[in-house]
Amino acid sequence: MTKVDLHIYIQFNNKPFINPQSLALLRKIIDTGSLNTAAKELDISYQNAWKMIDNMNKTAPKPIVMKQRGGTGGGGAVLSDYGLLLMKEYAYIELQVLKFTQQLNNEINL
Amino acid sequence: MTKVDLHIYIQFNNKPFINPQSLALLRKIIDTGSLNTAAKELDISYQNAWKMIDNMNKTAPKPIVMKQRGGTGGGGAVLSDYGLLLMKEYAYIELQVLKFTQQLNNEINL
Repeated sequence: MTKVDLHIYIQFNNKPFINPQSLALLRKIIDTGSLNTAAKELDISYQNAWKMIDNMNKTAPKPIVMKQRGGTGGGGAVLSDYGLLLMKEYAYIELQVLKFTQQLNNEINL
Repeated sequence: MTKVDLHIYIQFNNKPFINPQSLALLRKIIDTGSLNTAAKELDISYQNAWKMIDNMNKTAPKPIVMKQRGGTGGGGAVLSDYGLLLMKEYAYIELQVLKFTQQLNNEINL
């Protein structure tokens, strides 16, 4: 069956800082509280994961992920207040895009 | 300014056959009537352009681009009837996505 699929990007001053891959990484960081564990679960290197986060933090209007020091398992990673707001808005965007895509697919005949 | 941007993919049986890059190639083929010229204008190799077309033709429900033999300038490339229908539907999809994205961006506060 032929279907339209829409991929969500969020950009600041025309530069994307959220794409489907970085969004998956943010969700894993929320789940695990650790960039290291998040990277392992997504099967990417810690270095690549950190590059994605660093790029995201620098491109977004405000930093999204903050490193945390200490604790028994070493440093963790948490979302900033802006990061949490972003995830809330993203959930809304995702729902609207899902509804719109379903409607669009009902109109398409390919 | 923070904005949501949606990238359009068209898939058949869950496999994408149109993405933003292949769509740009199709539009260049329509403009120039030649895969070789289209590839040059997009600054990709003929081999890569042909791979994109071959993959598209095999993944879509019907072939989209057909090679044409002969003529003074050598072989050309044209869209099949299905390819033309696809471009017509794509123009509609693009317009709807543009309208939806503008509406969504009015609601977002990031």
